[in-house]
Amino acid sequence: MAFPNRLFLTMLMAETWLTREGGSSAVVISSRARLARNLVGLPFPQRADKTTQRHIFQHIIRAAEQVPSLAKAQVLDLPALSRVERQFLMERHLISHEQAFSPGERGVIIGEGEGLSVMINEEDHLRLQAMEPGLALAGAWQRVARLDQELGKLLEFAYMEEWGFLTACPTNVGTGLRASCLVHLPALVLREELTEVLQGITRAGGGARGLYGEGTKAMGDLFQISNTTTLGLSEPEMVAMLERVVTQVIRREMEERQALMAPALRIQTEDQVYRAWGILTQARAISYEETLQLLSRVRLGRALGLDLPVNTGVLQGLMLATQPAHLQILQGKELKTEERDLIRATLVRQWLGNEKRKKGERRCLTDLRKERNESF
Amino acid sequence: MAFPNRLFLTMLMAETWLTREGGSSAVVISSRARLARNLVGLPFPQRADKTTQRHIFQHIIRAAEQVPSLAKAQVLDLPALSRVERQFLMERHLISHEQAFSPGERGVIIGEGEGLSVMINEEDHLRLQAMEPGLALAGAWQRVARLDQELGKLLEFAYMEEWGFLTACPTNVGTGLRASCLVHLPALVLREELTEVLQGITRAGGGARGLYGEGTKAMGDLFQISNTTTLGLSEPEMVAMLERVVTQVIRREMEERQALMAPALRIQTEDQVYRAWGILTQARAISYEETLQLLSRVRLGRALGLDLPVNTGVLQGLMLATQPAHLQILQGKELKTEERDLIRATLVRQWLGNEKRKKGERRCLTDLRKERNESF
Repeated sequence: MAFPNRLFLTMLMAETWLTREGGSSAVVISSRARLARNLVGLPFPQRADKTTQRHIFQHIIRAAEQVPSLAKAQVLDLPALSRVERQFLMERHLISHEQAFSPGERGVIIGEGEGLSVMINEEDHLRLQAMEPGLALAGAWQRVARLDQELGKLLEFAYMEEWGFLTACPTNVGTGLRASCLVHLPALVLREELTEVLQGITRAGGGARGLYGEGTKAMGDLFQISNTTTLGLSEPEMVAMLERVVTQVIRREMEERQALMAPALRIQTEDQVYRAWGILTQARAISYEETLQLLSRVRLGRALGLDLPVNTGVLQGLMLATQPAHLQILQGKELKTEERDLIRATLVRQWLGNEKRKKGERRCLTDLRKERNESF
Repeated sequence: MAFPNRLFLTMLMAETWLTREGGSSAVVISSRARLARNLVGLPFPQRADKTTQRHIFQHIIRAAEQVPSLAKAQVLDLPALSRVERQFLMERHLISHEQAFSPGERGVIIGEGEGLSVMINEEDHLRLQAMEPGLALAGAWQRVARLDQELGKLLEFAYMEEWGFLTACPTNVGTGLRASCLVHLPALVLREELTEVLQGITRAGGGARGLYGEGTKAMGDLFQISNTTTLGLSEPEMVAMLERVVTQVIRREMEERQALMAPALRIQTEDQVYRAWGILTQARAISYEETLQLLSRVRLGRALGLDLPVNTGVLQGLMLATQPAHLQILQGKELKTEERDLIRATLVRQWLGNEKRKKGERRCLTDLRKERNESF
């Protein structure tokens, strides 16, 4: 396997919504708004044959090339990419797990800075998506709505006055909007309050999923909170509703963080944080799941004000860069699990170790450049 | 509880067989030879009433005061000591677990440098003991034999031509000699070869026990290997037999250490060692058992030549100083388990952290002095 596509390395180096910090960033890593759209008169992707899928793909690309929001966007034909490259896109939340690993004439359009993207022939013909760092649901919604308007002038979307936008799965019918936040809830997990909070989210009309969305595992105390219904409310009402839910979750998480620093628990909390730091800075082989779990503890420690020679940007950069496909793109070759575990541990030690000497400096990009100094 | 006895603090500060390194010190921490002796015409301690026990105690003390080997020795009346002080003596292997915690007119005579000691009214009237760092069974035997001769001129020991020295327990009849080595076997444990090696020891006429001797738990991959029979061989033959057994164990341990550094296992081994280092240098609360387990991994790492900013003397000093009673003597007060765990973690970080800055220097004593600078 070779990675001729320079795009992936460029993406690795660039500063995106994934490594920037936004509002309420102590708890909310990022906000997302996505719209499901389908072209009128054509079968949904799963019912379409290969030729029809190809026709849909081309039709959408031609429209996308003309809209201002997608100027300088990159179009990727997923079947032409290797499995690792597709996983890389999934790890960056640009495509879904299904889009990455299921067959079909699938594609993705990636806007400048990765903040805007369009999945083609996923469950629906189009999935428009806008991402923002931190808690910024309204901002994400506004950007995806503008893209929707621009594309709507060039493409005819399947729409019924009575139902709204038609989608392959009835849970998306109506607005086709799914808004979500990626939140970090280590204190709720440690204090065993998470189940109760998740029940509260469900009662309020939301849902919680794993790190990579529907059907994926929660790792590193990271959860995606989203709205579950797409009918009955206007888009701004939905966004406002989810923002209220997330604000409640933030409040509960902050309460439990305070409890972790109360006299009775403080030593135990510090112990957990510093042990995580000790392992991260010394391990010689480490899985992604363990890395994420330990980074979660260290991120919590930073949020609690503990003295740790690292900033949140570096931690977030590591959460991203230590993912399996990211490591393989970085190394320019396919790696076995054991090889990845070794390279991951080395990368983590380098970033966290260097950080000690040059406190406060952004490490994510410079270190990656150092790693691959032949290319830059 | 107060610790008026300055002796204990002096012992904490002194360099003894416990922190010095001897022969084969990569595996053997220390060698010990002990002789069981009883006074003729008097009941064994367990059968003697309090008055008789006291009489025996005084009788032995008067003789001990006159022998050259015990010049400058300290006599301790165990019932007059607190529980923590008695445990402190046990942690230094000066008295047995039974001697520390069972009732009776018990005592201990501690020779200069703790290398020679005499338990009074343990299972037998006298238990003479000599300790040496590293593999030095013959040396330990010679020192305890000299003490035996010196005391034998002043005390009449129970002896029968046919049986040899008489003892309370038949397993000690004859020479009354128990020789033993405290060995560190982390590679045999990691490679799951320990059971087989222990069986080999048993077949060769030896036995293996936990850290504090008979009936105590093995911790930190530390084991006491000793002879099990005291009849049928002369003392030098017994010592030579045990030395052969221990030499075999050393050989097996070294083989497995080599296996741990073979390409297939090297990363995993390094990972285990450095994770242990990471936790030790960062934990904020830690039990003694975990400390010992992690110190064991780091000691292994040093022996394997891995780059770790610590020397074996410091590790051995920590194994000793982080014991529960040691911590309490050091702090000058009784401490609850949670308090000890916190102080232990702090002590470990201080020692291992300081070591980084002043590589190669002996830390054990200077740091303890720093800890209690009011006294020195």
